[in-house]
Order: sequence, then C-alpha cells, then structure tokens
Amino acid sequence: MELITLPALHRMAVCGGTHGNEMSGVFLVPELERQRKEKGDAIWPIPLTTVLSNPQAIKECKRYVDKDLNRCFTSAILSSPITDSTPYEVRRAQELNTLLGPKQTNDAIDMICDLHNTTANMGLSIICYSHTNWICLHIFKYLQAKITTVPVRLVLLNIPIGDAYSLESVSKYGISLEVGPQPQGVVRADIFNAMKEGVNAVLDWVKNFNSGEVIEGGDVEAFMFKKTVDYPRDPETKTPIAAVHPQLQDRDFCLLKRGDPMFLTFSGETVRYEEEEPLHPVFINEAAYYEKGIAFHLAQKQPWTIPSIQAKKV
Amino acid sequence: MELITLPALHRMAVCGGTHGNEMSGVFLVPELERQRKEKGDAIWPIPLTTVLSNPQAIKECKRYVDKDLNRCFTSAILSSPITDSTPYEVRRAQELNTLLGPKQTNDAIDMICDLHNTTANMGLSIICYSHTNWICLHIFKYLQAKITTVPVRLVLLNIPIGDAYSLESVSKYGISLEVGPQPQGVVRADIFNAMKEGVNAVLDWVKNFNSGEVIEGGDVEAFMFKKTVDYPRDPETKTPIAAVHPQLQDRDFCLLKRGDPMFLTFSGETVRYEEEEPLHPVFINEAAYYEKGIAFHLAQKQPWTIPSIQAKKV
Repeated sequence: MELITLPALHRMAVCGGTHGNEMSGVFLVPELERQRKEKGDAIWPIPLTTVLSNPQAIKECKRYVDKDLNRCFTSAILSSPITDSTPYEVRRAQELNTLLGPKQTNDAIDMICDLHNTTANMGLSIICYSHTNWICLHIFKYLQAKITTVPVRLVLLNIPIGDAYSLESVSKYGISLEVGPQPQGVVRADIFNAMKEGVNAVLDWVKNFNSGEVIEGGDVEAFMFKKTVDYPRDPETKTPIAAVHPQLQDRDFCLLKRGDPMFLTFSGETVRYEEEEPLHPVFINEAAYYEKGIAFHLAQKQPWTIPSIQAKKV
Repeated sequence: MELITLPALHRMAVCGGTHGNEMSGVFLVPELERQRKEKGDAIWPIPLTTVLSNPQAIKECKRYVDKDLNRCFTSAILSSPITDSTPYEVRRAQELNTLLGPKQTNDAIDMICDLHNTTANMGLSIICYSHTNWICLHIFKYLQAKITTVPVRLVLLNIPIGDAYSLESVSKYGISLEVGPQPQGVVRADIFNAMKEGVNAVLDWVKNFNSGEVIEGGDVEAFMFKKTVDYPRDPETKTPIAAVHPQLQDRDFCLLKRGDPMFLTFSGETVRYEEEEPLHPVFINEAAYYEKGIAFHLAQKQPWTIPSIQAKKV
C-alpha cells in the first residue's frame, strides 16, 4: 500500500457554538478550558486553541443572529469589505479567519475540529470537505474503530476549498464532528459524552500520528452527498404540508428505495420515493434545515481507499 | 356515586403556536382549517374557533418574541394598560382575551384546548389548573381509555384562576395537551399524529357529553406539581455544569428515590437525589426551561376521584 508522508501537526483548535443552540459544543469547550486550568496544557498532545465561535448566538441560544456563521467562510465572504450593514456573523467569520487562518495560507492552523449537533439520528458523523483530506479520513477510521457507544460514519462533500463555507475550511485539515439526535437548546448527557469521546479520540490519533509511526491505510465506507429533498409545501404559503414519514424518521443512513414511504401529509397521505436510484438519506428532519428547504440530504455509499500515512520527522 | 349536572358546551377553541416553535400545533391548526374548508363545520360536534396564538413567534420559529405568551394570562397582565413599551405578547394576550374571553366572565368561551410540545418524553399529558375542573378530568379519563399509541397522563396544578397564567385559563374549562418528545422547530409525524388523535378524542368526548348521557366518574391517577429542581450551575457564570443523568433522561413520570442519579456533570461526576420523599419528575430536560432555571418538575402521584357528570338539558 502507498505510504504518504505529511508534515506533523503543530497547532489545533476545537470550536463549539458555531451554531449557538447546538449545546454539546457550547458546554464541551468550557469543559476543555476547565481541564486546562486544572491540569495544565500538558494533558494534550498538541497546543490546543479553544473557541466559542458565535458568542452572541450562544447568549441568545439561537443558531445565528443575522446569518448562518457556518456558511460565511468562503474566500469571497472572508475578503468582503466591512460596512455598517455587514451582518454580525460576517464580522465574526473574518475575526475567526484572523485568529485561526488566514484560510488557504501557510499560517493557517493545522486542524480545526468543529463541534455540531443535529436533531437527526446521525450518531457521530465525521464530515469532510475533500475526498483526499487523508488526515481527516484517517481520524474517521480511528474513531470508527475506537468508539463503540454510538455508530460512527463518514460523510464526504467535494467542494473546492475556496468555495467551502464552513469554519473548519479555514484550517489545513478541517473536520466537523456532528452528533445527534439532540434538540436545539438542549444538552443530553449521552450525546455530550459521545462528543467528548470523539474529541478525546481525535487527540489520541494526533498523538499517534505526531509520534512518527506509520498509520496503516485501508478501505472505509463513505457517504457522498448527492442531492437534497425538500418537504412537500403549500404552493401559495410555502409552508410544509407533510412531515417525514414515521418509517423514515430516525433512520438516517438507511437505504431509501423506489416506493419507500418518504413523507406523511398532515391529512394522512403517504408520499413515496419515486427515483430509480436507491440512496441513503442523512440529516433527516434537521430543525435548522426547514428554512433552507431541506427535509433530508441523499448520499451514495461508496468504498473509499485511504493510503498509509506517516508524519515527517521535524 | 355523586352525579353533577353541568351546562352543555356551546363553543370551543383549539389553539396552536402559543409557543411559536412547538410545531405540532403550528401545523395542526391549519390542518383543522383545511378540514373545515373541505368538509364544512358539520364534521365537528360544537362550533370550533381555530387560533394560531402567537403569529409573530411562529414566523420567527421562536418560543416568543418579547415575553413568554403562555405566562401572560393572569388577571393582572390582562388588565394592565398598553403603552409604547408593552411587550408584543402582552398586547397579543389582551387581543386573545377579547376574542376568547373575557377571562372569568360569563362571555368567556366554554373550552380552550391549547396545543403544546415538549422536548421531554412526556407522551400525551393533559395539564389542568384546577383539581375540580370536572370537564377536563373527564376528558383525561376518556383520552387515557381511548388512546393506545402513546401513554396518556394527567398533571394537576392548583392555582387560583386569577393567577393562572396560561392561555386556556381564559376559558371556563381550560385544557392543555402537551405532547413529546419533539425538538423545538421540528415536526415529527408520530408526535403530530398523537396530538391529532388527542384533539379528535376531545371532540368525541364533547359530542358524548353534549348528548346528555351520564358520563360515569371513577378514580384516576393524577400527578400533582410539588416543586422544581434546577441544574447545578457555576456560581459565577450561572451556566449549567451538568446535564440530566442518562439514567433519568427520558424517564418522565418514573419514581425518583433518595440516592438515584439525577445529574451528570460535564467532568463526569454523578449528582444524586438527596431528598427523603420519593417524587415523580416531569418535563425532564425541556429546552424552554433552561432560562427559567428548571431542569425538571417534581410531582406527587395521587389517586383522584371524579364524580359522574351530565349535561343539563338546554
């Protein structure tokens, strides 16, 4: 198997509250800071920056104040001039880019691990914005082997880095940990613990990698984003006229085949999946996606080969 | 058994969206309006007023805009003068009091059935603000016998009617249908259907009662509100430092005994229930109660005897 040599990781950030009502990260970041205060930096294998990304939204317990922060990290928005009417989150994105980036430069932090929750039954999902981000794919492989309390899955988007809109795209190797199901504004101990276990496993992996050992590659199973499905809506008012069908609700990553129930209208009729191609729904009934016109995403399951990697001796 | 004669019911309201992000009611009220348009009023046994209580909060998908609407129906707030600085919800409460009340007068509507969701695992809970609201207690008894898809329970508060703060207190016989678990801003088909089934069963009961038949009384099991428990909080920042313990989460209406796990701190320590008196937790980990300083309520289970009732011939 191919062996790829990559620079060791020198700096890493763990960010929570990028969406202010996703509470696991909002509480895990202060918990990491408490650990640092109590036990010192040496507990971590790498200098760690902890960030609460959207303090105003956290204060108001909202996803965002003016604009979804996690859609503000494109090169275009990061370089847009600030005026009096610039949304709060665009200012904050530029601040975070100064702190952790600048994006797409050598000065950018090696890794951002951004913490998210979803109301969908997604277990612990690792979301990557590149098919060849070997560091992230190896981290997924490690987490999937180590974590047994929740299912661990990999969701891949393939977006050119300049167009990538999420916070972790500011770093060289961005990774998003998405844990659910958890309602907005609620912290559940089981979901919090899954996220804590995930972050600890990421730090363990970084320690192994930085030690210079060869990290063996192999095949993993990836879910590749294909398209989105919206709720059936009233043509005039645009409000949904159906909910996700009980037979689909909570079944993220299942296989949706032609004829399977997809929605149940509020008057009791079943709407079925009519496409020929069977696909895997993810982010089923995520609260934040109603306004985005998304009932769920559809992904294609695909085996994905990861090369062995090794950190370059410093 | 005692037989109490009561006036037949002449007008009823079903209200949704009193909290703008509790989506079952937000979608059920328009569905009732669609049914009326399609099939006419005669499908219901009683003239029905349908109300979306907090349109602005529904539009913004928030619990409330300025102030929790469902705390605004005390006699004091309903009679307070309107000024430029009056919160939106106080104005709206007074509008609703004009439409459905006035509270504590003969002109008040006979029954308000107010639709709510909770993030807690409460099944279908009937909340009443008086221990002798026989109509509501009979409706509970009927729903508990008829509905088999979700557990049906009765939660009793004993608040003088003038101090009762919730919308249904405007009517002569107020009832609140609380269905969960459902995240804020999400509609789940199973929870929506439980609420729809609940409203249909209320309407069935009204038909039976208005027919003049004797409705047999009997003993029911009631949960009486006793007190509230807050999250352990940081003494300085006042933010929670623990989540509801996994062994308590989702176990609403269970019996909490001295020594049982209650919270799990974010650093991993268990906080136990220390009181002598075993009680029943309800509304465990409700999203909207973080800001109110409530992790859960504690209730006492008590048998409650309901007399037989009969509608007075008109």
